[in-house]
Amino acid sequence: MHLIRNNYYTKIHMAAKLTSRDKDYSRWYNELVLNADLAQHSDVKGCMVIKPHGYALWEKMRDVLDRKFKETGHQNAYFPLFIPKSYLSKEAAHVEGFAKECAVVTHYRLMSDGNGGVKVDPDAKLEEELIVRPTSETIIWNTFRTWVQSYRDLPLKINQWANVVRWEMRTRLFLRTAEFLWQEGHTAHATKAEAIDEAELILDLYAKFAEEYMAMPVLRGLKTESERFAGAVETYCIEALMQDGKALQAGTSHFLGQNFAKAFDVKFASKEGTQELVWASSWGVSTRLIGGLIMTHSDDQGLVLPPKLAPIQVVIVPIYKTDEQRAAVAQKAEELQSELSSKGLFVKFDNDDTKKPGWKFAEHEMKGVPVRIAIGPRDLENQTAEVARRDTGVKESISFDSIVDHSVQLMTDIQENLFQKALEFRERETREASTYEEFKEIIKKQGGFVKAHWDGTAETEERIKKETSATIRCIPLDDDVQEGKCMVTGQPSAQRVIFAKAY
Amino acid sequence: MHLIRNNYYTKIHMAAKLTSRDKDYSRWYNELVLNADLAQHSDVKGCMVIKPHGYALWEKMRDVLDRKFKETGHQNAYFPLFIPKSYLSKEAAHVEGFAKECAVVTHYRLMSDGNGGVKVDPDAKLEEELIVRPTSETIIWNTFRTWVQSYRDLPLKINQWANVVRWEMRTRLFLRTAEFLWQEGHTAHATKAEAIDEAELILDLYAKFAEEYMAMPVLRGLKTESERFAGAVETYCIEALMQDGKALQAGTSHFLGQNFAKAFDVKFASKEGTQELVWASSWGVSTRLIGGLIMTHSDDQGLVLPPKLAPIQVVIVPIYKTDEQRAAVAQKAEELQSELSSKGLFVKFDNDDTKKPGWKFAEHEMKGVPVRIAIGPRDLENQTAEVARRDTGVKESISFDSIVDHSVQLMTDIQENLFQKALEFRERETREASTYEEFKEIIKKQGGFVKAHWDGTAETEERIKKETSATIRCIPLDDDVQEGKCMVTGQPSAQRVIFAKAY
Repeated sequence: MHLIRNNYYTKIHMAAKLTSRDKDYSRWYNELVLNADLAQHSDVKGCMVIKPHGYALWEKMRDVLDRKFKETGHQNAYFPLFIPKSYLSKEAAHVEGFAKECAVVTHYRLMSDGNGGVKVDPDAKLEEELIVRPTSETIIWNTFRTWVQSYRDLPLKINQWANVVRWEMRTRLFLRTAEFLWQEGHTAHATKAEAIDEAELILDLYAKFAEEYMAMPVLRGLKTESERFAGAVETYCIEALMQDGKALQAGTSHFLGQNFAKAFDVKFASKEGTQELVWASSWGVSTRLIGGLIMTHSDDQGLVLPPKLAPIQVVIVPIYKTDEQRAAVAQKAEELQSELSSKGLFVKFDNDDTKKPGWKFAEHEMKGVPVRIAIGPRDLENQTAEVARRDTGVKESISFDSIVDHSVQLMTDIQENLFQKALEFRERETREASTYEEFKEIIKKQGGFVKAHWDGTAETEERIKKETSATIRCIPLDDDVQEGKCMVTGQPSAQRVIFAKAY
Repeated sequence: MHLIRNNYYTKIHMAAKLTSRDKDYSRWYNELVLNADLAQHSDVKGCMVIKPHGYALWEKMRDVLDRKFKETGHQNAYFPLFIPKSYLSKEAAHVEGFAKECAVVTHYRLMSDGNGGVKVDPDAKLEEELIVRPTSETIIWNTFRTWVQSYRDLPLKINQWANVVRWEMRTRLFLRTAEFLWQEGHTAHATKAEAIDEAELILDLYAKFAEEYMAMPVLRGLKTESERFAGAVETYCIEALMQDGKALQAGTSHFLGQNFAKAFDVKFASKEGTQELVWASSWGVSTRLIGGLIMTHSDDQGLVLPPKLAPIQVVIVPIYKTDEQRAAVAQKAEELQSELSSKGLFVKFDNDDTKKPGWKFAEHEMKGVPVRIAIGPRDLENQTAEVARRDTGVKESISFDSIVDHSVQLMTDIQENLFQKALEFRERETREASTYEEFKEIIKKQGGFVKAHWDGTAETEERIKKETSATIRCIPLDDDVQEGKCMVTGQPSAQRVIFAKAY
């Protein structure tokens, strides 16, 4: 066993084991991200390098979401990376929330420093500083003013795939990075009802994506006023529960009212000929979802991927000693690969002869490949192969006759099993608290989601946060609404809300 | 006819005409980009907004290229937007070429200015300034050092789809913008030969993409030393000829030797156990290609798109007066749409009843839809429809029986016709000059590509550039090599090179 090195760049030796989740969840996470070749820190503080396997995962997610956006009438566009500083302050609440930890461009030229290096040219100072976009509401609404004249131009349903930057001091790969990749939808509507419908349509789209593709169950809800997006009238969210009992906000969809239309003077001529302010929504999910995916399913052997998002769904590992065996096994493996591919599966035949089968097994387990098929000389004799499931670890000997159908069926089974396991975990780890004492006890000892009554005030919310580190994740939309009394103040409460410690 | 407004944002009225190409090519181009809904300038100097139609075109191009990269063994990844200033100066030639007109991030926080606005927080100054990437060799090679230990880790064939920023004072939509979108490939190899093969493989891939998808003929060649990428040993390029007789560099592929491996200390243990420097290539194409596409095919009616890259390939426009006619026409149109879609065509049924057919005709011509099908009540009686080609303007009455096959065939015909037309244009506009006088005359009066002998020195190249504004576009790879004497100095020349004025 090699020594585990856990620095910014270096992977541990494949034959070594990850720190177990029980022992140190946070360390397990970092080691997994590095060792599954998902991402690594860069020399630029807070910025990550997304490695090929991590990026392939992001592409799979992006492609599904992009298709869903297009099916629901959205179009992609691209807006500038830079935002003039003054734009940020045009919407009062927005500036409070976003004009803080930003990357600021002040100059546009470098010059030689006379020693082979470069320095900033003091003569190339911008008149107005530019902000690297932390989100694009301001620049997009400034553009929408030129796109919208009449009700005929509405609705505008625009999405952008982009990088954004929010300066962060304490970063974690995928979960919190200074630069991250995301999509941001920005829509403009003639009526309030349409804009709310849009925000809810997207909430539903996000929730279905999380559950049906990521196999990650989510609660749908509304944010409290203090957790709301800066500039929104209402923020809808999906919240997932990670294996360590902490919540992860996985996506948000905002009803923005007419706030940005007012700030950027975006009006339209109605059918009746009056000038009206436009109604808006915005919504986004990011590479943070990859962190959520990891922490929902993975185990001490590495990443576990739901088949629908796995860049490689089946890996075939040949086992042989002689060249003759190698050729015979390869022939069968290639035949199988081609049959499985023709069924629409993504299959890799790992015929790299510089690595031993055991090494390959560990590597593909680490990278989360859902199904592994191992074929050796004895399998050829028996007309069978060993099929191993990544999610349960179960290995079965399957005859060549049925191995294609079996593999196709496994895609459905594993997808379903991962969702069910995660759902059962969340249900087990969701508790009700009647008193504040009980609440504090659960948060301290068990974690998970806690449903409790709250009086609706920011003061009580703040007090709970200070005393327990738990925040209101959402006011759930799917729940039975039961009135009650706030666990802290005894004041009336319209319904239980969901608390948790969160990422 | 409405007044043409040609400012940053506002499209001219659809019923108005573009300035003709003959009258003012540059103005025609700007008006077309705005009116075909491809892009517009933003308030941020030099940064463009890519509008939905322009972005859809970029997505089509990206998807084809991305597939070709993957088929040839490349993987996507993502590297940080920011580059520490000191990285730029690690490779001596690179810093000369790129560390000039850059966006420089100096601060990471804003604060309230006390008047509802924000100002830069002077306490949040970065110790080392960050450069918004103008290209990513430096940050990527700094990362490759952590990926490459042994010959088993090679080759590394990585591609990134990203935004980059090069501060530009004089910008033109798509052709020259401060921020643009591109892909940049970065590969690492164990041998020089492999790295050169890779650079040539990509040159070939780019050339085929340009010719087979964009229907844009290109010359393949090498750049002269003074036009070479900063840090490259050799720069391969594809060069296209625009309708106004100016050349456009459409893509470059660089053999970087061991320059970046040296600068960032990237070595590998060879099979023999020695430590060796890694060999490199890098290559890229950008949203500039959209500018090339426009200027290769489009006409005074607007954009002309090759079918293989058209987001909408066929538009069906219904013609009716009464509601009854409308319903009957719509039924046939939807039937046709579904049949054409089942053949793999992208079809839009434009049933917007707020616009007249003539308006729609002009709009779809402006946007470059390759085929338009118009169906009215009389067509229903005759069981025919009017099919119009965007490239030739030819309209034909085609029977319902054969309209599907006819439309499918038109995709091939139009694609082929556009390429042939462009190729004939280029051949017509490519001339040989024997003397410098003749050369100057051609450049001044006719433009186009000029093939001439050059003595291979930077001095002569510079003199020609100064006196004629023409530059050496490439030393062609496809040509018959004929020795001769430099048209300027009479010194020996190994082969004719290609000159032109260029974008």
